[in-house]
Amino acid sequence: VNIALDAMGGDRAPREIVLGAVMAAPEYHHTITLVGDPSQIEALLPKPVPRNLVIHPATQCIAMDEKPVEAIRKKRDSSLVVAIEMVKDGIAQAVVTAGNTGAATAAALLSWRQLPGVHRPAIASTFPRHGGFFVLLDAGASPDVDPEHLVEFALMGRAYSERVLGRTDPRVRLLNIGEEPGKGSAFARNTYALMSHYPWFDGNIEGKDLFREPCDVVVCDAFVGNIVLKTTEGVAEFIMSLFREALPKSKLLRLAFLPLLRTLAPLRKKMDYAEYGGSPLLGLNGLCMICHGRSNAKAIYNALMSTQVAVDNKLIESLRQHFAHGQAK
Amino acid sequence: VNIALDAMGGDRAPREIVLGAVMAAPEYHHTITLVGDPSQIEALLPKPVPRNLVIHPATQCIAMDEKPVEAIRKKRDSSLVVAIEMVKDGIAQAVVTAGNTGAATAAALLSWRQLPGVHRPAIASTFPRHGGFFVLLDAGASPDVDPEHLVEFALMGRAYSERVLGRTDPRVRLLNIGEEPGKGSAFARNTYALMSHYPWFDGNIEGKDLFREPCDVVVCDAFVGNIVLKTTEGVAEFIMSLFREALPKSKLLRLAFLPLLRTLAPLRKKMDYAEYGGSPLLGLNGLCMICHGRSNAKAIYNALMSTQVAVDNKLIESLRQHFAHGQAK
Repeated sequence: VNIALDAMGGDRAPREIVLGAVMAAPEYHHTITLVGDPSQIEALLPKPVPRNLVIHPATQCIAMDEKPVEAIRKKRDSSLVVAIEMVKDGIAQAVVTAGNTGAATAAALLSWRQLPGVHRPAIASTFPRHGGFFVLLDAGASPDVDPEHLVEFALMGRAYSERVLGRTDPRVRLLNIGEEPGKGSAFARNTYALMSHYPWFDGNIEGKDLFREPCDVVVCDAFVGNIVLKTTEGVAEFIMSLFREALPKSKLLRLAFLPLLRTLAPLRKKMDYAEYGGSPLLGLNGLCMICHGRSNAKAIYNALMSTQVAVDNKLIESLRQHFAHGQAK
Repeated sequence: VNIALDAMGGDRAPREIVLGAVMAAPEYHHTITLVGDPSQIEALLPKPVPRNLVIHPATQCIAMDEKPVEAIRKKRDSSLVVAIEMVKDGIAQAVVTAGNTGAATAAALLSWRQLPGVHRPAIASTFPRHGGFFVLLDAGASPDVDPEHLVEFALMGRAYSERVLGRTDPRVRLLNIGEEPGKGSAFARNTYALMSHYPWFDGNIEGKDLFREPCDVVVCDAFVGNIVLKTTEGVAEFIMSLFREALPKSKLLRLAFLPLLRTLAPLRKKMDYAEYGGSPLLGLNGLCMICHGRSNAKAIYNALMSTQVAVDNKLIESLRQHFAHGQAK
């Protein structure tokens, strides 16, 4: 089995991407194909090169701020498009990228197409919460969806929770602006009505309860999901910056706070997206693991490891069966 | 001038509500009318009672989880409905409530109606950010709006920023899932197109930049706005709980961290909704200041003070003129 890694995508590419692959290689029982500029990639590899790392040349690179559809049409030899085409051709089984999310979503959708029975793909993003974590989807793949599509997201989120995160009978909740059934926009109320036919549905959840109430899968549309993802990031950074400012200015005095800073390590780890191994784009005939644009080597390492779990546990095949049998389950 | 305070609304009513009025009374040049159960209210007032505090009896009380429209129809003698009717009858000039937000919005809308030219009311919520604060609307008043309504929200947010928060030429941004003009859902793109005709519009803002980029007014629909409000609250509480857990368990060892905890006071203050004086419901023929359900006396004090500023600076009259002259400004 072969995992295609977009070596040129992300704010810190290719350096951190390649280093992440080097970190993962000793623990990897599949081959990692680094797609991108061979000379830049080679310069970052140790000697001797780990046996399960190979390079596949691609001459172009899609920038983080390029318009997705235009970029993937023009740059057919970009590291991202080449990696995705490798999956389509059966040469690779999954793609890992920290590049332009919109371009990755568009390229994967156009090249792989939806699984039979799935109408819209969704990005499943993992969030920390008190005593665990939950998966939120759609975190940004498909704007402008209908309530029926959120039921698909729920089924995809459940399969991902079971196959990759090891949950048994994952519970699903609908992100809404009130807990009771009649709350929210017309879209939210209609979605609630559809979801309430399923045994795994546990009702609405509000933003303030996301981080404290036990729950495995939270569904919402891509606009709301992306706003939640980015706002969470913004609030956490804001509080951390206030915390840094609250510390004394003198370096000597700061030393006194070192023990506390060390005590806070679990907190930092919990808030650190790099710990969460990327967000899979689900619902297509192939697996694309989308990493934060600012991913460092550790983030790429974790994304490669969870991609391995997804491939080993046949996540895509399980989704295909799920939807082939209809949504009755 | 007379401000009607819903003494029975909120998780900590009537105690904290009445105490907030007592705190505000010495600095208040208007009368505060405490609406609710006279015996409960009187028991909480100091002797002698401050001259500018009066009681208006109301025999009923709307619970925090009651269905809004049903509650205001059935409970015509509830503290909330009576306070709102006092404004309609010209006996009071504004309402302050920490009660059921949905009921307050519905009652004010049904009783006062929209200002001429305004189609939907909006709640303007104040958020802290690096180096200041911003106002986000709609934080939960009007689900299911059209792009035109967000232009109205922008105009209302600007008037509030100018009249109450003292901003000059407030700048407006649209909450979106990307910075560039073409980003987001169809709704967001259409809103962007409408807004771009106005000189005060500064383009899109993403969730991650809300807390660090200078900006006065952020607009979005009520669903997204309420999700942002609650998620921000949830993330802040989550980080604070992790912080508390990171502290040593022993009481003696915790003493060592007291200096740091004291240093963190500005952080707590910045994240404390009680500092922000309530969120006005804008766009109606009357002013309703909506406070957090968990409001303590300080929160009510701050809400009363900012209501005084709004009344003194003729916020509603300014909004009426704004919209009477059309939206061309």
